[in-house]
Amino acid sequence: MAKEQFVKEVADMEVDFPQWYTDVVLKTELVDYGPVKGTMVIRPYGYAIWENIQKELNERFRATGHENAYFPMFIPESYLKREAEHVEGFAPEVALVTHAGGEKLAENLVVRPTSETIICEMYAKWMQSYRDLPIKLNQWANVCRWEKTTRPFLRTSEFLWQEGHTVHATEEEAREETLTMLGVYREFAENVLAIPVFTGRKTEKEKFAGAKETYGMEAMMLDGKSLQAGTSHYLGQNFAKAFNMKFLDKDGAHKYGYSSSWGVSTRLIGALIMAHGDQRGLVLPPKVAPVQAIIVPVAAHKGGVNEKSQEVLSALLSVGVRAKCDTRDMSPGWKFNEWEMKGVPVRIEIGPRDLERGEAVLFRRDTLEKQTVKIEEIPAIVSALLPEIQAHMLEKSKKFRDSRVKNVYSVEEMLTALDGKNFTKAAWCGERACEEAIKEKTAASSRVMTEDELLSETCVCCGKPAKKNVLFARAY
Amino acid sequence: MAKEQFVKEVADMEVDFPQWYTDVVLKTELVDYGPVKGTMVIRPYGYAIWENIQKELNERFRATGHENAYFPMFIPESYLKREAEHVEGFAPEVALVTHAGGEKLAENLVVRPTSETIICEMYAKWMQSYRDLPIKLNQWANVCRWEKTTRPFLRTSEFLWQEGHTVHATEEEAREETLTMLGVYREFAENVLAIPVFTGRKTEKEKFAGAKETYGMEAMMLDGKSLQAGTSHYLGQNFAKAFNMKFLDKDGAHKYGYSSSWGVSTRLIGALIMAHGDQRGLVLPPKVAPVQAIIVPVAAHKGGVNEKSQEVLSALLSVGVRAKCDTRDMSPGWKFNEWEMKGVPVRIEIGPRDLERGEAVLFRRDTLEKQTVKIEEIPAIVSALLPEIQAHMLEKSKKFRDSRVKNVYSVEEMLTALDGKNFTKAAWCGERACEEAIKEKTAASSRVMTEDELLSETCVCCGKPAKKNVLFARAY
Repeated sequence: MAKEQFVKEVADMEVDFPQWYTDVVLKTELVDYGPVKGTMVIRPYGYAIWENIQKELNERFRATGHENAYFPMFIPESYLKREAEHVEGFAPEVALVTHAGGEKLAENLVVRPTSETIICEMYAKWMQSYRDLPIKLNQWANVCRWEKTTRPFLRTSEFLWQEGHTVHATEEEAREETLTMLGVYREFAENVLAIPVFTGRKTEKEKFAGAKETYGMEAMMLDGKSLQAGTSHYLGQNFAKAFNMKFLDKDGAHKYGYSSSWGVSTRLIGALIMAHGDQRGLVLPPKVAPVQAIIVPVAAHKGGVNEKSQEVLSALLSVGVRAKCDTRDMSPGWKFNEWEMKGVPVRIEIGPRDLERGEAVLFRRDTLEKQTVKIEEIPAIVSALLPEIQAHMLEKSKKFRDSRVKNVYSVEEMLTALDGKNFTKAAWCGERACEEAIKEKTAASSRVMTEDELLSETCVCCGKPAKKNVLFARAY
Repeated sequence: MAKEQFVKEVADMEVDFPQWYTDVVLKTELVDYGPVKGTMVIRPYGYAIWENIQKELNERFRATGHENAYFPMFIPESYLKREAEHVEGFAPEVALVTHAGGEKLAENLVVRPTSETIICEMYAKWMQSYRDLPIKLNQWANVCRWEKTTRPFLRTSEFLWQEGHTVHATEEEAREETLTMLGVYREFAENVLAIPVFTGRKTEKEKFAGAKETYGMEAMMLDGKSLQAGTSHYLGQNFAKAFNMKFLDKDGAHKYGYSSSWGVSTRLIGALIMAHGDQRGLVLPPKVAPVQAIIVPVAAHKGGVNEKSQEVLSALLSVGVRAKCDTRDMSPGWKFNEWEMKGVPVRIEIGPRDLERGEAVLFRRDTLEKQTVKIEEIPAIVSALLPEIQAHMLEKSKKFRDSRVKNVYSVEEMLTALDGKNFTKAAWCGERACEEAIKEKTAASSRVMTEDELLSETCVCCGKPAKKNVLFARAY
């Protein structure tokens, strides 16, 4: 659709950010609503982003000694109940299979909301001796969490994710794993998604149901809200005890293992949109963009424009650029807007007049800058430009983020800062009651605790002695 | 485990092939039983094979103009009922979600047994004009079919697969697509899995519930039974009418589209095992083997054996061989047997005496041959050997298959041939009653119809005029 039409049909992001988001994800054909309430269809353009995310993460998981596997999606309902906090957290959200093969089942099956229980059941079978440890597996899977309020990518009844599950002989190793994977996520978010994140431990109130400790990765969206973009849990022996995950140690004693789990999901696609988008639509970092460079022939029938466009396409593909040439029967202007909306990092316009001079016009989606380039230099220029765009997008996001974190010393100050689309940092006493009071007054929740010097000796909420600094923000 | 122990613990494949299969899949750690009856856990070694299959198929799907996408796993029960044959075929096998989020659902949800219905619902929304066609998508997903009798990879309540779904403006295009994808599967089976297959149209009795025509790919297992390894369906306008998939054609008329669907599943891993395995365990074709070359240092602590092994590993990895060096604290003999059992195509033994001469021993899993090679030549030799092994495995399978298809002219002859572990080819009248009578008497079913000259003028079963030659075989 033409830019005017697109701009008209997309809500103003300054005025109604949530509607802008919905308009953009639907109109760029990343996603569509599924027929069952709360479900989504991930369309090819969205799925291609997910495949790029998978590829990058798989490399990192392999490099840190993990292997992929696949566990069943159906979990006996009784498994969920073996870990008390776990069932309390997940039972309200599960979908239940009660009938199968034409018969009522003897035991209901839960469609996995997460797979700690079924994976621990298998690990208990596989780990006999300390020689079998650690076990470090990851799975790519669909999971189901029945939510009342849903939004594409951010919160849906079914979504895609990866979940890593590990078991170790010692507490130390399991803790190290938990932090290593948090670090992998952080590095991935910054270097691949171009999103700088805050990482740190979650409070008791915000931790994963069944974990000893949860570490989170929080990303700031353009509306100043936080998106929990990944979590890594140290599970201690909670699941080991619930599932009898024991091993024979070197010293001849039978011991429970220590486990961890960690995951990121298709939510990351939502993060990309809300961290980088603008009024024209998506702005995709080159590393995850399905199309990195789009060639648009202008007056394609004239003077070898089509032929030259195909040559440039081949040249770009041969240097490893994900390039495409748009030969559809539409006007160049329509195509320009279409690909801007879809967030393609680089556009190359090849027209008859430029061609006579051996030149083409190159457009950068992130800065909206145009430059004229020599056609034969395009592969080299684009190869160098893509990492430059990637770095520039991260830099821009970092500046934005750094300008939007305010230290606050009272709940009133916090409220003002939040209304100004900021994250806030405050000293906190460690009590859940204060988190709840803050949430009540400001709609912000504690995101992560930070390890820096206390901002104040007293809690921002109750005035009792402070224990930790905490990032408070409104969140998705 | 040691070879003696493995051989002892694995059933004799000549005596009890099904038990041999079960022993092999479990002991090589391809798979394990899930806690819910009929489900499986795909362990890392099995999943790595699946990832190699995915990679090879994705390349082929892309080359034939398809894109990946993802559709929800929950399908409203009413959708299944819109296509009469479809519901009849699948209703008995479905798992039903009746409760979610703590409430009884207004409409039960089916966990997808296949996704024609939900995908057609979306296509109907997306296809407005002939310009939107064809739509050619594929999805990698888990599906659920509740089966009474299950076996790992071959028949499980949940399995992984890909399902391609396309819709076209004309019957001709949809028919062409159906056959193109059958061809893609055939080429893939032969060149990647090293399994020669029979392809052809299925009889009415054996076709997919809801299809106009089903084409199947049948692979001969070492016990002479057939495994349906993939199918491609021409769906005509059956689903288009059930889901109102209409488009505005060039001539201004609103018309129903023509659709196709096609799929292969984790069953292919079962095919690999039963087409190539032997009494020692798996024999994997190099193209899908998770490890293509395993290096086993012998007397590793002596005279630079370990260092040289690592050098060879690096050299192999650098020429793109999926190589691994087994440095575990076990005897070389134990490791030899472990990797033979796991079907690794090439083993390289590096010991101190060979090393003095600059040599190593190279073992081929497919022929069980050993040769002494110069260490510096290993990367070149292995690079050349892997395609040779791949070709040899296909050749061997072809010879086996060709020697095991018998033309038969009576049901008695058919029974004898089947008992001798053969496929049989016979002329058939086209009536379902004869297929049923043959099944009753011989336990064989019609696999595919072949297009060659009629073997006889009369049906092998009833003696009425024959219409088609059919491959009959006992099947998984």
